[in-house]
Amino acid sequence: MPETVAVIGAGLVGSLMALGLAHQGYKVTLFELRPDPRLQNKGKTNLRSINLAVSERGIDAMKYVDEDMAKRVLDGVIPMYGRMIHDLQGNQESQIYGLFGESINSIDRSKLNDNLLNEIDSFNSKNSGLEIETKFENKLVSLDLSGIGATVITSSNGDELKSHFDFVIGADGSFSQVRQFLQKNIRMNYSQEFIDMCYLELYIPPGENNTFSIDPNHLHIWPRKNFMLIALPNSDGSFTSTFFGPWKFTESLNTREKIQELFINSFPDAVELIGMEKIVECFMSYPKGSLMQVNCNQYHYEDKCIIIGDAAHSMVPFYGQGMNCGFEDVRILLELMDVYHNSRKRAFESYSSDRAEDLKAILKLALDNYNEMSTKVTSSLYLLRKKLDYILGKCVPQYWIPLYTMVSFRSDINYSKAIRTEKRQRMILKSVEFSLLSFGLIGAAHLASRKLR
Amino acid sequence: MPETVAVIGAGLVGSLMALGLAHQGYKVTLFELRPDPRLQNKGKTNLRSINLAVSERGIDAMKYVDEDMAKRVLDGVIPMYGRMIHDLQGNQESQIYGLFGESINSIDRSKLNDNLLNEIDSFNSKNSGLEIETKFENKLVSLDLSGIGATVITSSNGDELKSHFDFVIGADGSFSQVRQFLQKNIRMNYSQEFIDMCYLELYIPPGENNTFSIDPNHLHIWPRKNFMLIALPNSDGSFTSTFFGPWKFTESLNTREKIQELFINSFPDAVELIGMEKIVECFMSYPKGSLMQVNCNQYHYEDKCIIIGDAAHSMVPFYGQGMNCGFEDVRILLELMDVYHNSRKRAFESYSSDRAEDLKAILKLALDNYNEMSTKVTSSLYLLRKKLDYILGKCVPQYWIPLYTMVSFRSDINYSKAIRTEKRQRMILKSVEFSLLSFGLIGAAHLASRKLR
Repeated sequence: MPETVAVIGAGLVGSLMALGLAHQGYKVTLFELRPDPRLQNKGKTNLRSINLAVSERGIDAMKYVDEDMAKRVLDGVIPMYGRMIHDLQGNQESQIYGLFGESINSIDRSKLNDNLLNEIDSFNSKNSGLEIETKFENKLVSLDLSGIGATVITSSNGDELKSHFDFVIGADGSFSQVRQFLQKNIRMNYSQEFIDMCYLELYIPPGENNTFSIDPNHLHIWPRKNFMLIALPNSDGSFTSTFFGPWKFTESLNTREKIQELFINSFPDAVELIGMEKIVECFMSYPKGSLMQVNCNQYHYEDKCIIIGDAAHSMVPFYGQGMNCGFEDVRILLELMDVYHNSRKRAFESYSSDRAEDLKAILKLALDNYNEMSTKVTSSLYLLRKKLDYILGKCVPQYWIPLYTMVSFRSDINYSKAIRTEKRQRMILKSVEFSLLSFGLIGAAHLASRKLR
Repeated sequence: MPETVAVIGAGLVGSLMALGLAHQGYKVTLFELRPDPRLQNKGKTNLRSINLAVSERGIDAMKYVDEDMAKRVLDGVIPMYGRMIHDLQGNQESQIYGLFGESINSIDRSKLNDNLLNEIDSFNSKNSGLEIETKFENKLVSLDLSGIGATVITSSNGDELKSHFDFVIGADGSFSQVRQFLQKNIRMNYSQEFIDMCYLELYIPPGENNTFSIDPNHLHIWPRKNFMLIALPNSDGSFTSTFFGPWKFTESLNTREKIQELFINSFPDAVELIGMEKIVECFMSYPKGSLMQVNCNQYHYEDKCIIIGDAAHSMVPFYGQGMNCGFEDVRILLELMDVYHNSRKRAFESYSSDRAEDLKAILKLALDNYNEMSTKVTSSLYLLRKKLDYILGKCVPQYWIPLYTMVSFRSDINYSKAIRTEKRQRMILKSVEFSLLSFGLIGAAHLASRKLR
């Protein structure tokens, strides 16, 4: 008899986890509060979602579950090889992400979710007897971890259903219910912190004949220090654009005049792309989203329950790692369950103790990256350092790896190691700069760097 | 028409708040989940409570509400003028708390709660038409802050009661329900952190003819670094004693032999006081309590809801400030509501912005004081510094106030200012020590301090 597991939440992380467990031979039931998103009216754009940038950690996790699946799921992503910085005059400047042509990859969150759910259907059609049972519109009411295994009560259309599993995996997002039940069983340290920043989604329509109005292979940024605009490409020629700004400032943009003034002064080229009428409409009537960090530990209770993804660690979107990190959770947990296949308790314990430092690290990186995206990218000292970082990464790759590369393109380097390595490298860079300065060469290097751009 | 307010939680802080609001002319309803504690069987000792040490901030808050009440409520407290340190040989050494004979005051938590509830009854008998309505066994089910004022739904014996108030005050403890409802309305930063320490309550019975077996006017400490035992006097000649130790260590004391070994080696004189049979029974079968810190901000939503006491800031018990700080919340909030009597919103805003730094400060002080109680009190360098601190506090009281005095005996100095002042004083003390060292005088001072003890 295969062991039974309930996965709570059929979002990105929950769906991948369900597939991974099914591949390992578990009998999986996947519960989801909302209706099947594939049956929804897709005409109505989901205004609260940010486009995702799939990078190495996310791809690796999908490949770990099923190499072919990864290819199918990622079909149609748009590679972004660098940032495109838009200045106040509308000039654009490309800053490449990788040393060797690596890209992060733009995909619509709901499309990725649909693809993963389709993979579950296709898994089921090939594996009769070991199907993943998917239960939409089932709200988790109660989770009892006191007896042997876990008892789950869900409600659907007013009817309560009680079911029993060997263990439960919570992948139910930032406001996780599973986490709340888990807290009744363990002494969980927990923190949630809102940053004073909100976001508002805008939309750049496709150009004529579904062409892209700006370069599709870049993540576009209009960095304006306290606030910024970004845009990620969609496969139909459009871009999903997001405005980020402090709450008070953004809420003060409450008249047509103020909104027009801001955009004409700060984002003149974006006005042409989005259209002033649409910008005003969005600011005046669309909901603004808040940005929150959640962190906790430990993540599990005995061999019965564990939380992954946003349920365990919700981060701000500025490093594009939220989903990638959640997918990495899946890979690491599956690997540990494979290594300790005789003791799920040891696998869970190992996950809780090993993963905490890395999750803390990526939360901090994500928070710090706002400053990089909104401000630093326009500083010539930053660009010079970036250039040196790039040159060293190219010349002595075995000794030197830029931070962005470690985080986005090297799933073999865990987040906390990336931070430690970068710290060491930054110290070295600073002393190199100091030496350059001493020899009066910095000016020359700077000139050279301007020519190289 | 007086404004109406619901206070959730008839514990210490909620009861005092209800009294304070009634004195200000509000129409108060006080809801409490549990039955009236005065109707409970008091024979059954509450094993999870720690005796409280009432100090200046708590007393001041009670006096602010009603000077006479404070006297009645505190009748029978036992003053503790210092710590009594028990060493491994059973020798006792007194370390005085105050510069001028100040004391912290031992009282049984449930007795204090009963006294405050009796004060509510006595207030009601004197103020017909403006009674505080007290509703025990009423569980908060829902708190709706979306309309004008606040709608509260409580359940009692299965019946739900819906009532409407101008505002709600949450004083419902560490696991506050009000806080959870508040989080649906504001972007609340929140953290909870368990320290790796548990506690277990023990009991030193009265001596013959209800005499005290050890000095009643001290807080007794058996400091053993990683773990410790403390004892606070009760008015009947007994002491409530508490063992604190790391979870793993404490849970490993699971056989009669291990418990006996620990107590004979580490607390030989406590064995005589408590009795070995009783100690073994407590360790083998009584529940162990966990120690948690909770912090959040902001504390309010518009002019409709605010949380105080443990609901807003739960601290570890090592500075004896949990209840005192909660009572101070009551005083500060009442003062602000008095100052801004035309705008409760401004009073609440002011409370949230002013109080956050102080609450953060006392949480840190409480955490740090474990180290002081369990370890530092036995170090001769600590004792020398304490002596210098004491001498300076006596000689130049306008310039120098020891930290303990500021926290426990000076409600006019807020917690964060106490920390800043202490930091400055410590710097000065260190340079004084350095000078003493330079002149080779430290040895002499040390010898002198030993004689002075």
